[in-house]
Amino acid sequence: MKKVMKRFLTTLIAFALVVTTAFIAGRQDRVVADVCKKTTKSVQTKVTAPKYVFLFIGDGMSYPQVQSASDYLGAMSQPSGSTILTGGKKLSFMKFPVVGSATTFDSTSFCPDSASTATSISTGHKTYSSVINMDETKKISYETVSEKLKKQLGYKIGVISSVNINHATPAAFYAHQPSRNNYYEIGKELVASGFDYFAGGAVIAPTGANKDQKSIYDLAKEAGYKVVTTTADAKALTSKDGKAIVIGETLADSDSLSYENDRKSDEWALADYVKKGIDVLDNKKGFFMMVEGGKIDWACHANDAGSSINDTIALSNAVDQAVQFYNQHPTETLILVTGDHETGGLTIGYAGTNYDTYLANLSNQKTSYAKFDSNYVANYKKNNTPFAQVLSDIKTNFGLITSNDSDAAKNPKLVLTDYELQLLKKAYDRTMAQTKEKQTQEEYVLYGSYEPLTVTITHLLNNKSGINFSSYSHTGLPVGVYAEGVGQDLFGGYYDNTNIYSNLANLLNIK
Amino acid sequence: MKKVMKRFLTTLIAFALVVTTAFIAGRQDRVVADVCKKTTKSVQTKVTAPKYVFLFIGDGMSYPQVQSASDYLGAMSQPSGSTILTGGKKLSFMKFPVVGSATTFDSTSFCPDSASTATSISTGHKTYSSVINMDETKKISYETVSEKLKKQLGYKIGVISSVNINHATPAAFYAHQPSRNNYYEIGKELVASGFDYFAGGAVIAPTGANKDQKSIYDLAKEAGYKVVTTTADAKALTSKDGKAIVIGETLADSDSLSYENDRKSDEWALADYVKKGIDVLDNKKGFFMMVEGGKIDWACHANDAGSSINDTIALSNAVDQAVQFYNQHPTETLILVTGDHETGGLTIGYAGTNYDTYLANLSNQKTSYAKFDSNYVANYKKNNTPFAQVLSDIKTNFGLITSNDSDAAKNPKLVLTDYELQLLKKAYDRTMAQTKEKQTQEEYVLYGSYEPLTVTITHLLNNKSGINFSSYSHTGLPVGVYAEGVGQDLFGGYYDNTNIYSNLANLLNIK
Repeated sequence: MKKVMKRFLTTLIAFALVVTTAFIAGRQDRVVADVCKKTTKSVQTKVTAPKYVFLFIGDGMSYPQVQSASDYLGAMSQPSGSTILTGGKKLSFMKFPVVGSATTFDSTSFCPDSASTATSISTGHKTYSSVINMDETKKISYETVSEKLKKQLGYKIGVISSVNINHATPAAFYAHQPSRNNYYEIGKELVASGFDYFAGGAVIAPTGANKDQKSIYDLAKEAGYKVVTTTADAKALTSKDGKAIVIGETLADSDSLSYENDRKSDEWALADYVKKGIDVLDNKKGFFMMVEGGKIDWACHANDAGSSINDTIALSNAVDQAVQFYNQHPTETLILVTGDHETGGLTIGYAGTNYDTYLANLSNQKTSYAKFDSNYVANYKKNNTPFAQVLSDIKTNFGLITSNDSDAAKNPKLVLTDYELQLLKKAYDRTMAQTKEKQTQEEYVLYGSYEPLTVTITHLLNNKSGINFSSYSHTGLPVGVYAEGVGQDLFGGYYDNTNIYSNLANLLNIK
Repeated sequence: MKKVMKRFLTTLIAFALVVTTAFIAGRQDRVVADVCKKTTKSVQTKVTAPKYVFLFIGDGMSYPQVQSASDYLGAMSQPSGSTILTGGKKLSFMKFPVVGSATTFDSTSFCPDSASTATSISTGHKTYSSVINMDETKKISYETVSEKLKKQLGYKIGVISSVNINHATPAAFYAHQPSRNNYYEIGKELVASGFDYFAGGAVIAPTGANKDQKSIYDLAKEAGYKVVTTTADAKALTSKDGKAIVIGETLADSDSLSYENDRKSDEWALADYVKKGIDVLDNKKGFFMMVEGGKIDWACHANDAGSSINDTIALSNAVDQAVQFYNQHPTETLILVTGDHETGGLTIGYAGTNYDTYLANLSNQKTSYAKFDSNYVANYKKNNTPFAQVLSDIKTNFGLITSNDSDAAKNPKLVLTDYELQLLKKAYDRTMAQTKEKQTQEEYVLYGSYEPLTVTITHLLNNKSGINFSSYSHTGLPVGVYAEGVGQDLFGGYYDNTNIYSNLANLLNIK
């Protein structure tokens, strides 16, 4: 009996040593958490809070946006001549060890809004569409994870977006407004937040809706912010400069950063803003950085698959900056990547192409729908440009060609059929008519509120690539929650987006 | 020093005891697996293989099918008069602790086939579309997880499908054929497998393509199978009867089981076949049961959202049977639920309804597209039924009404607009013409290979409910992999569907 006891004790100690080894290996949080989960409630050991937290939100990015980007990269690197498909290439965050699914409905709809969904992520509360960090009565304000981290733990806070820094998603980390459209009030809350690093597209309505208020930028300077508007100054920024607002030097549609499709080599990519953010936020107490890939959503609203894919890849590259930091601080860092909702009802597959896709077709798109609108369609309307010239621009910018084009034999998958050409001509006529006539139900489904010509071009290129959209709005698909680092295991399973907040709050011990 | 050592030892032993408690609590596999993952490679502890393995495959079931079913249940139970949406109701498997994502491409396409994707799940190999458990040269056969479990571990094996038991997905667990269309050869392999329980829809082509071969059922009887074709006999079946083939008494389209939408109360649901399967397969050595919800796929091919939702709920109910078993055998059971691919490009959201959904509209659908085809449209063609009578049947079976209908004021969301009525009339004309004329490109996108009238009815009901489909084929969305039980943690993350097999094989120690 004594011998048995001794052997039992030895085994116990050996096992305890194994666990201790895991502790020394620096992943104590997960082991402790797992062991705790498996024991009675009386045994509770605290999980270490991550000192560095990255939260990437691909606006409008659900499984279709992620998988189509992955499949596009796969299609582009498929060995030529091979008759066996080798599949997609994983984006950075698709390699994370934990991937949960989060439901995204808000208090208004299964097809929710960005303000309300970001509110759920940043505060753990559901609310109506278009409300930022307030309840359904629009009277009670909710404190956000970023505000709590600053106040309770002294973390530095960074908020980055490829769209405007007072747009719904970034606003949901520092503002509290009954409407996401209160841009000036949101701008004032941005200044009042005292957060350490804002970066991305310009402030919307910086002097108010009537352009009669003191500029948000001036208010920011008075509050001690360094406001940077050139790439050279952004490059020169250091943590010694204190609180900073970095606005892209080149601004595109609605003063946002350029679509990745349109970005020139001297323009900063989203990854550059993240890299700089890490430089200026890194400090002994810790930091929280929210990064929005906001133009995935805008591209999908416009049913522009090529731009969605390239901006999703840009987000993946931005995540890579966080992964590099994580590799240097593996026991102190958590990276979360998620979406706020799906946009556009993107599908990898289309009725007209059956079981085939031709994703490499999308590489012929050289311009986002928005830049095509501003650089081409605006001139067409001014100059009453004939359809033949438009077709030539379509070839240059989207690769689509007519059957009598010299490249038709070489690129048969890009040749417009008579039916497709007819759809294009009808859309061109509708765009050129510049009528204020109300759209018919059929036209609304065909064009939404977009430029009929441009949205028809992207529809045709999408469809010929084996891609389709079903909506110009957000849809009800759940989003992936990709987690790597301290506390990652909390983010597995199929749960509501409010749990992203509650898991973070539990992990970070904030109230 | 001695005192410190003693305290250290006490702490170690206490900690070991905690772990031991977890062992006793019966979840040793996960603790051991996690601890092992966290220690050096030199420390390896074997994970216990689950004795009972359930693998549910929702054919065509990806995130949209699951979430739309969940949201539909939520919409149906939304408190009337409430202005705050309360969200979806979780299906059984959405509550599982681990949910991974699996990519589904096959060697042919990003929009893969059921034969090849089931091959990936059952053998860990990619292959071309329509190939069952053979390589791309169609010369090398792969042994399946179920064959290995029978041969190497003596597990009893069950294969259940709501479609035909020699259809692609079930076939991929026992057959090896260059084409999924070799139904008779697949039937012969079914008999030769010696598996213990086959149940569901009837064998396709039981006497061969030319109806000149000995019936598969007779071959099965000769091989010792009890063949059951009535519900009464199915109810009476016990494990003492030995190997059994249970075919539904009521057969629907293509000799499959009824859509849940059409199922009469005396017909067995998928859950009943699973319950009986557990009864007859339960044994000391263990069992493996594959259950296919095959008509989710068929419904989505036909763009019939109402039937997809109800068959997804039926699959969830079938999973509940496994969950009950798991609750009795928590330390010996693994339940996996997944899809083989997405079908139809289903989206919760539609251009015409913007940010709104009206999912409760779908409760007006009383009949599957297939039954409407056979019970109504066939007669319309025979009798040249006028459009007015057809509209009346549409009201009865799908709830859609015209503006002059007596219920129009009560159910405004179901009233067809002039444009929608025009689409319906055009489809009716196309169906009634019974022409063999080749479809135009536009018609193909509108109707696929389906009955123009019926597919237009479901399109209209879907769209008025805020739902859309983009394809009549499979699409490239990843699928969820929902896991509960022994080894569940192996199924987290974003990985390829071939990993479902390799994780199972590792866990089960089969080669």
